[in-house]
Amino acid sequence: MGSLFNSGADRAARRATILASHLIQPELAATSLLSASNCLHYNAPELTNPASFNTIHLRQILDGHHVETRDWLFKLMEESPLFCPKRRCQGKVFVAPDYNATKEQQREMTMRRIEFLLNNGVFEGWLTDFSAEATLRKFGLLESLGVYDHSLAIKVGVHFILWGSAIKFFGTKNHHERWLGDTEKYKVLGCFAMTELGHGSNVRGVETIATYDSSTREFIINTPSESAQKYWIGGAANHATHTVVFAQLHINGRNEGVHAFIAQIRDSNGNICPNIRIADCGHKIGLNGVDNGRIWFDNVRVPRENLLNSVADVLPDGQYVSSIKDPDQRFAAFLSPLTVGRLTITAEAVYISKVALAIATRYALSRRAFSVTPSGPEVLLLDYPSHQRRLIPLLAKVCAQSCATNFLKTLYIQRTPEANKAMHIYSSALKATASWQNMITLQECREACGGQGLKTENRIGILKGEYDVQCTFEGDNKVLMQQVSKALLAEYLAVQKKKKPFKGLGLEHMNGPLPVIPADLTSSTLRSSKFQTDLFCLRERDLLKQFAEEVSYYQAQGESKEKAFLLSYQLAEELARAFTERTTLQVFLEAEMNVLQAPLKEVMGLLRSMYAMTCIDEVATFFRYGYLSVDNGAAVRKEVAALCTDLRPHALAIVSSFGIPDSYLSPIAFDWIEANSWSNLSSE
Amino acid sequence: MGSLFNSGADRAARRATILASHLIQPELAATSLLSASNCLHYNAPELTNPASFNTIHLRQILDGHHVETRDWLFKLMEESPLFCPKRRCQGKVFVAPDYNATKEQQREMTMRRIEFLLNNGVFEGWLTDFSAEATLRKFGLLESLGVYDHSLAIKVGVHFILWGSAIKFFGTKNHHERWLGDTEKYKVLGCFAMTELGHGSNVRGVETIATYDSSTREFIINTPSESAQKYWIGGAANHATHTVVFAQLHINGRNEGVHAFIAQIRDSNGNICPNIRIADCGHKIGLNGVDNGRIWFDNVRVPRENLLNSVADVLPDGQYVSSIKDPDQRFAAFLSPLTVGRLTITAEAVYISKVALAIATRYALSRRAFSVTPSGPEVLLLDYPSHQRRLIPLLAKVCAQSCATNFLKTLYIQRTPEANKAMHIYSSALKATASWQNMITLQECREACGGQGLKTENRIGILKGEYDVQCTFEGDNKVLMQQVSKALLAEYLAVQKKKKPFKGLGLEHMNGPLPVIPADLTSSTLRSSKFQTDLFCLRERDLLKQFAEEVSYYQAQGESKEKAFLLSYQLAEELARAFTERTTLQVFLEAEMNVLQAPLKEVMGLLRSMYAMTCIDEVATFFRYGYLSVDNGAAVRKEVAALCTDLRPHALAIVSSFGIPDSYLSPIAFDWIEANSWSNLSSE
Repeated sequence: MGSLFNSGADRAARRATILASHLIQPELAATSLLSASNCLHYNAPELTNPASFNTIHLRQILDGHHVETRDWLFKLMEESPLFCPKRRCQGKVFVAPDYNATKEQQREMTMRRIEFLLNNGVFEGWLTDFSAEATLRKFGLLESLGVYDHSLAIKVGVHFILWGSAIKFFGTKNHHERWLGDTEKYKVLGCFAMTELGHGSNVRGVETIATYDSSTREFIINTPSESAQKYWIGGAANHATHTVVFAQLHINGRNEGVHAFIAQIRDSNGNICPNIRIADCGHKIGLNGVDNGRIWFDNVRVPRENLLNSVADVLPDGQYVSSIKDPDQRFAAFLSPLTVGRLTITAEAVYISKVALAIATRYALSRRAFSVTPSGPEVLLLDYPSHQRRLIPLLAKVCAQSCATNFLKTLYIQRTPEANKAMHIYSSALKATASWQNMITLQECREACGGQGLKTENRIGILKGEYDVQCTFEGDNKVLMQQVSKALLAEYLAVQKKKKPFKGLGLEHMNGPLPVIPADLTSSTLRSSKFQTDLFCLRERDLLKQFAEEVSYYQAQGESKEKAFLLSYQLAEELARAFTERTTLQVFLEAEMNVLQAPLKEVMGLLRSMYAMTCIDEVATFFRYGYLSVDNGAAVRKEVAALCTDLRPHALAIVSSFGIPDSYLSPIAFDWIEANSWSNLSSE
Repeated sequence: MGSLFNSGADRAARRATILASHLIQPELAATSLLSASNCLHYNAPELTNPASFNTIHLRQILDGHHVETRDWLFKLMEESPLFCPKRRCQGKVFVAPDYNATKEQQREMTMRRIEFLLNNGVFEGWLTDFSAEATLRKFGLLESLGVYDHSLAIKVGVHFILWGSAIKFFGTKNHHERWLGDTEKYKVLGCFAMTELGHGSNVRGVETIATYDSSTREFIINTPSESAQKYWIGGAANHATHTVVFAQLHINGRNEGVHAFIAQIRDSNGNICPNIRIADCGHKIGLNGVDNGRIWFDNVRVPRENLLNSVADVLPDGQYVSSIKDPDQRFAAFLSPLTVGRLTITAEAVYISKVALAIATRYALSRRAFSVTPSGPEVLLLDYPSHQRRLIPLLAKVCAQSCATNFLKTLYIQRTPEANKAMHIYSSALKATASWQNMITLQECREACGGQGLKTENRIGILKGEYDVQCTFEGDNKVLMQQVSKALLAEYLAVQKKKKPFKGLGLEHMNGPLPVIPADLTSSTLRSSKFQTDLFCLRERDLLKQFAEEVSYYQAQGESKEKAFLLSYQLAEELARAFTERTTLQVFLEAEMNVLQAPLKEVMGLLRSMYAMTCIDEVATFFRYGYLSVDNGAAVRKEVAALCTDLRPHALAIVSSFGIPDSYLSPIAFDWIEANSWSNLSSE
């Protein structure tokens, strides 16, 4: 063996060796100067794929708001050395975190980036300005941070969206005055201690206890068992000074249910406070720039005022008072403002899919493989029908989901107490669907880029690990989708009972006559919004009815309502999907109707039809319940292929409309031959 | 801001602070000694899930061979400090690489582990013993290495399976004598330079040139353009001394096509050889323990004897000689021995799915969430019907695929030159299917474990990034599946032309009468192997016919055969899947028939039915082409749920049969509350 295994020479030494071996052969260096062969050279896709519509206009529709603000932040990050800019080819600079760093280094870098953003005014008004404009600005900026790095967005999100929103929504005037300004200026660093080792999605089951001591007017917060340790608490392991802690409120031996309290966990020098124990959650498959930690409370005393009392309060003598009598409703009201977390996850998932699709589409427009004719040129990946089928339906989905995200934001901005339930349902449905779709999109794009998709510098692959967490945090996707169906079932039963028409959640279509699906589906029928909407409504309507019947059947067999619901999981899953896709289609169609310019309107129509056809073609549902015949299904499938052909010329313009700056894409999105050339080696 | 951002304190200092804050409150440490609450404590699943069958027997069926040899290697690694053993709870030790290390550190550790394995005789006979026994031993050991770490398996695989097999199969006696022994002893370190920046799956398009110089009797190997740089070459960046290089052979201005040559790239001290330039491929989303590199050849001269000449040779005077006249056939013959690479990928993908399923199933048998009755105990995850639907069908798939892998191994061991084509088709189909299924399984298991699935120590999540590469290396999965359909089409056309019956590839069923599917599908029909086989054969038969018709239709429209094939991609994809699943079902059924003990036979029957029902239920195909009616589909779906219920009691025994030692599972597979306890912190 000997020296072959002694590979401890560091990178610099190896580089020197490489260069040396190059230098000792000057005549070869001259003769071997590599010029692109006839076969393989990079052609910028822009040269052969002109846009037929105004891409800025489409971007405004998809982003929905604060386009210039996003670009300002993108540029701010791009120009700071803290964001690791690397010059690669022909002066092109790419920014991305160094994922070859340890978690400790990544955490350090995340904090330094946040400090830079703070000093540049990025967070101004995030908590102190309650206007709709400020809220939307915050959303746009947070999304843009996520395009750079999920850790950065999450670390900021935990502080502002979780800790900050908890103070804002669960707290009252005194809390706002005491904390919001300091939080915005990072004079305190907040975290959010809800999840425990033993309880995640089931928040009502948390075991941490807050006992009121009327003699000192304090709450005593305690971790009664190992499974009650707070777990996954972003910011807790290294940086946070304060936390909102969720605990069962015990007063005089009575449990009033889960409430939220403020507790300090570190002093201003970063030392852990007495009676607090903290441990690291360790290395993760992504998000290593976030210091997730675990917290144990050993009878920590906090003043009575630290109860976040917007919904319920404890008077000094220990009397429990609440404006909402029913504990279930109280709990729901209490958590409903947190839907904003799901909103930001949805928006971020959609944005990340755009990053991946922009990269994969651009690569498919410059990478060739195999020739179709003997000695003919190799074919561009995106000219293969199967490759079109791989990427183009995903473009349609992400555009539709962008519009759905904007719908959710509008709902949030205009929210009323009565709209809490709708907001909960929509945010659950869209968060689950967007985060799952993002994983599907990332995997498809990664494979579509072949091995290049695995290189960290090309972003797509690494985003999989970074964003996977979205599928289970702020509510496990499966649980969220079940809650959607449960809520729809409740609507259905209420309507039956009250004998009143459906109102809200877009269910008004249930009041009209059953839509009729034509037996013969021509291309123009398939592409008509009437047919698409009818079919999606028909599916939702029928599945809701079948679901109600199945639950009722199980109940008639003696099962509890809860158990009956669990047994009907197959229909519940399909129903939640039907609801989400019908909503998305309608919202997407509305955006299309608002467009005036013919060229863009036409492309949006193609995208909307592609969205609808793909939703139908990729599942068995429409066959399974007889909504479509075998012939209908064949017509749909044929139309998917036809739409691929129709959208192919617009693919580049569509991904350009995503508005991701070049420097946030990656070397394979541009001249990847030049970026990989020997002469570019020193710039890596 | 100030000191809040100064988080540079290292881990040790933080640990000290944590411990100090703990120590200054001895009375609290006493009173807060955490005992498990009534609600949450860990119950070992073994206590309530006794096996109804002999798990060792099932393991022998699934592993197929060398069960004890695998266990010997597992133990060898487990007991060496090089494999990072960590004691977690109740004396339980877990082994896993440190993925918080940089790629440079991971590469270093991989080489140290290989040296240890070498010194312990793991690689004995891997290249010098040509017996079936030695070959199977090698496969079993390689798979076990992969269970520890993909980088380790790949680094070993590149050396033995790629470099080693190339010497063995492409080379002749002199090459064997010169290289095989030295390779087995790691006196040389080999790599395999096939892929280029511009050409991956399309090997015939590589641009590297080897020009024969008859005056010196040497080949001059040259990289003529940047896109011709060898890319992704495992071992090239740091360690390899030699490579097999694939290049277009030019003799007297004539291109004889792609051939393989041996070239030295480093001397025995690790210095890069003259006229060779090497660069790193950089950080990847996984496999960072493998030093993938890029190589440029600047008119490197190698002796004539370095041509691997089993198929074709160049005589000293430059005359080109080959036993195979047709260049297409020559190329095919040349690459066919490399199917062994796809075989090992298939086996590894199946093994990794087992690791994930063992972890997720054990966790689902100890983790509870939500109660179904008021104040009732929380329910075990695996007692939720939807969670059963999530995991149990995957158990059936992985068992079926284990048997398919063993079938592939037998085929390989017993291979004849005539069986090359079948080996190519089966290995393509199974490699693509197993690697895709592995990604699906890992994602499902990761989500089924919630946030715990994201912790690197719990393995499932990190395996996603580590194994994703399988979907595109040694042939892009989509391309491989297209090749399968293309080959089936060729068979179909040959049979039509020659008017002879189908023979081989299991297509004999095409010669018989069309199977008849009963209109009314009872549970016992659905579970009968006759029905399942009939339905799978019917699908394959019909899809092959439809595919042939569609290709022929496009040709009649004036498209070239190649183009017609590309346009029929939707049928091609479904046909390849139909072929793979029919093969897998038959092989699985055969394994079941060979079982004598009733309890195991029964469980294997349930698994086989679950495999069949899941394959039907999860796609639209059976509806799309009218193989099943709406009522049939409903019956199948109901049967999936029923099989979940039937298999639920066997879930633990099944994952125990996977034979993954406890220490290769992870903390959440055992007492995860204890493993996460404060008192266990020091052992992390």
